[in-house]
Amino acid sequence: MPDSEKSRIAIGNFMTLNTKSVRPDTSVTDASKIMYENHIPSILVEEHGKIIGIVTYADIALALTIYANDPSSQIKSIMSAPVVSVTSDSSILDAVELMLEKKIHKIPVIDDGTVQGIISATDLMSLLSVLDEEQFYDVFRTHISK
Amino acid sequence: MPDSEKSRIAIGNFMTLNTKSVRPDTSVTDASKIMYENHIPSILVEEHGKIIGIVTYADIALALTIYANDPSSQIKSIMSAPVVSVTSDSSILDAVELMLEKKIHKIPVIDDGTVQGIISATDLMSLLSVLDEEQFYDVFRTHISK
Repeated sequence: MPDSEKSRIAIGNFMTLNTKSVRPDTSVTDASKIMYENHIPSILVEEHGKIIGIVTYADIALALTIYANDPSSQIKSIMSAPVVSVTSDSSILDAVELMLEKKIHKIPVIDDGTVQGIISATDLMSLLSVLDEEQFYDVFRTHISK
Repeated sequence: MPDSEKSRIAIGNFMTLNTKSVRPDTSVTDASKIMYENHIPSILVEEHGKIIGIVTYADIALALTIYANDPSSQIKSIMSAPVVSVTSDSSILDAVELMLEKKIHKIPVIDDGTVQGIISATDLMSLLSVLDEEQFYDVFRTHISK
């Protein structure tokens, strides 16, 4: 297939553009509010123009229960770091493999230090919705018969 | 395609079998511990043999931050109810549509009142990992050119 077509299956076409970042000293509750109000399941932590961490609802839930952190504590104390990221020209299939390997569900898409978006398991799952039942069977015949 | 083949693309083949349930009066922290220790991103709430709710890390995070619940409060006060469920012979594609429509990422699989498993966006995403780059392009050509 020509390169011009090949590039169209890159992550850039399927990622969520809606991302937010907060400073490392933002409280867990304030970060959670921003996530909720913006309908985003994760938030980036930025310092001096660089992404230094990422926080999901799972990180918040575990921090405030098992690790007994306070909701007023700084987000940097509970963030995941360093951040696993991809570039917008990475392949969708690379993102799938990375999520399965690292057991993560959200990966920031960063080009030359600039955040372009986030790709999630749900974004990738939604690709399946374009298949009809017969196409689905054809595609996954090998997998199913394993 | 014959019925015997068609049935093999049902949710039953792809769901996660590892589920846990707790009583409605379990504390949020105890439920969170069970989720963490069992590597499960959601937990079911069961009363008198019936599933009455489901709790994800997002529910816990929001309850303990925005809604200012205490980690020692009862899980029933923060659970999502009623539970959206599918049966194990439902189609994978029905699950995809339900997740996108209801904006949920986990759906319990319940047959005649008995929990069989949970199907998640990540379970469904992992199906994409069986495709190679060329197959992927063929399958999603229509979608990509939209």
